[in-house]
Amino acid sequence: MSDTAQRIVLATRPTGEPTAENFRLEHTPLPEPDDGEMRVRVLYLSLDPYMRGRMNARKSYAKPVEIGEVMEGGTVAQVEVSNHPDYHRGDIVLTHVGWQTHAVVGHRQVLRRLTEAQAPISTALGVYGMPGFTAWAGLEEIGKPESGETVVVAAASGPVGATVGQIARLRGARAVGIAGGAEKCAYLRDELGFDAAIDHRAPDFAEQLKAACPDGIDVYFENVGGAVWDAVLPLLNDFARVPVCGLVAHYNDTSLPPGPDRSAALMALVLTRSMTLRGFIQNEFSARYPEFLREMGRWLHEGKMRYREDIVEGLENAPEAFIGLLKGRNFGKLLVRVSHPD
Amino acid sequence: MSDTAQRIVLATRPTGEPTAENFRLEHTPLPEPDDGEMRVRVLYLSLDPYMRGRMNARKSYAKPVEIGEVMEGGTVAQVEVSNHPDYHRGDIVLTHVGWQTHAVVGHRQVLRRLTEAQAPISTALGVYGMPGFTAWAGLEEIGKPESGETVVVAAASGPVGATVGQIARLRGARAVGIAGGAEKCAYLRDELGFDAAIDHRAPDFAEQLKAACPDGIDVYFENVGGAVWDAVLPLLNDFARVPVCGLVAHYNDTSLPPGPDRSAALMALVLTRSMTLRGFIQNEFSARYPEFLREMGRWLHEGKMRYREDIVEGLENAPEAFIGLLKGRNFGKLLVRVSHPD
Repeated sequence: MSDTAQRIVLATRPTGEPTAENFRLEHTPLPEPDDGEMRVRVLYLSLDPYMRGRMNARKSYAKPVEIGEVMEGGTVAQVEVSNHPDYHRGDIVLTHVGWQTHAVVGHRQVLRRLTEAQAPISTALGVYGMPGFTAWAGLEEIGKPESGETVVVAAASGPVGATVGQIARLRGARAVGIAGGAEKCAYLRDELGFDAAIDHRAPDFAEQLKAACPDGIDVYFENVGGAVWDAVLPLLNDFARVPVCGLVAHYNDTSLPPGPDRSAALMALVLTRSMTLRGFIQNEFSARYPEFLREMGRWLHEGKMRYREDIVEGLENAPEAFIGLLKGRNFGKLLVRVSHPD
Repeated sequence: MSDTAQRIVLATRPTGEPTAENFRLEHTPLPEPDDGEMRVRVLYLSLDPYMRGRMNARKSYAKPVEIGEVMEGGTVAQVEVSNHPDYHRGDIVLTHVGWQTHAVVGHRQVLRRLTEAQAPISTALGVYGMPGFTAWAGLEEIGKPESGETVVVAAASGPVGATVGQIARLRGARAVGIAGGAEKCAYLRDELGFDAAIDHRAPDFAEQLKAACPDGIDVYFENVGGAVWDAVLPLLNDFARVPVCGLVAHYNDTSLPPGPDRSAALMALVLTRSMTLRGFIQNEFSARYPEFLREMGRWLHEGKMRYREDIVEGLENAPEAFIGLLKGRNFGKLLVRVSHPD
């Protein structure tokens, strides 16, 4: 058992792309739990695009991380010291303690208890956790793909996109994935069973997407924005549904792009195609989380849902991994292995 | 009984604002009904903003009117000659024969039979017809105002906007109307009971709107676009719903406005505020039309729903009235009195 903790705090706010200088690694004494609390040691830290929004001073959909505060993030952790009767040393829990090796938590901060018998514990940060639920809820509540419809998703080899495409297929829809590079596209087609996969870096990307969607697009699960959205927009069918889950292509934007102003044209398309654009964050649908866990748990057990993890070793490497995430450098759910379980 | 019919056809397609030259008045022989058909004489022609879209060659949400074809439009008409057993000379019907004095229709083209006992027959083109149903369905299916929420609607003295505001109040919400000029605003407040009415021509319009919505905006019924939308957007609350029903400020646009391009910023707002933008046309919800007729009929009988008509005399004046409609010159539901009932 180590006698010091490490944590990564927000040192300065980024302008545009984050850099290593925006983060600072700190060493602190091990925190000691009070009565009813426990100290946990982080095993896995999840790195997710939403964290970029937390680095800005401006509220996006959650309050920002303050300068000097520990970067926020979901974690799988193991109980090291417990002063709570329901938890024991060695228990593994899903919690949200951020970019640090150790933390003191109360039982209310434990989101779920985890056992390897349910699913590999790291999946509680991916397909069997928040990203998976984001995919499931966005389709259940907004996208509502019907059999035979075409569902398109970008960042499709990531934990949300990969899950969106596989759920779409399980619901009887066609899944078309967009990803960066031939290797990711091959993975989508060959390992996840997407009906088509398009490389957004291809010079004829828009034409390829059109060819892959001969009946247009009924559901576009938006997590990227930018050039992908521009290519998707003309292909959207009447009554298309667009769950707007993320806009990672714009997270580093520092000013509005030059004109012409296409915002009224976008509204006109929403009107004439009777389209639905609906922004969401998964926690608004948390009442359905138990239902998600049952269905996803079954799919995982039956081998109907596949996932891929991209694991970086060591908390100190989290900033570089996170910077790469925003550039699409990861391949699969990006996790930091902070420590090994007992 | 006249022995010739008149009709107004699309002479040329407009570029930008329509002009008188885009229309042509034609005289034709009275059409004669075959077996099972009837000839109707139009009493009222409805003029509505959607007609601008039909004048373009490009499909918007319905196919365009072709050059030389009669302009499309809803009509209240009286049966003059009937070869159908269910209809008799003198019957009054809601039908959709467009900008003409007479037409031959089959019984399938009769949308409803009308009697003054239900409601004044002209209301079948306004509050008790398509515009009223547009308001009702847009709120029922998309806007879903809850008690205490703030509903904003522009073109609020028009048949859709006036109905939106009054339904919002009947559902327990606050109604804030936007209209052009002091007279229309006074009408909204004093006669329709809107909680506030703002003149969009005021130099401090955006500030006035903000002051009238101290708790933000939960439902914005979009039928205008342009500067009103720009003022509404920053006031929309988390989980705001925007039924997108029309964009009359843009119907005459011939090119995209200059930059910067605000379309990605709009998507970012949809995301971070978990907003819903949903385009619609009332006919997608036609299964609920009977329910609308019952509820609206009750409100009209109980004096809970008020309306105002702006009646222009004579088919030949339809083009000028329509051009004025797109500029907000009408005050209330714009109708053309084409002939008087027997």
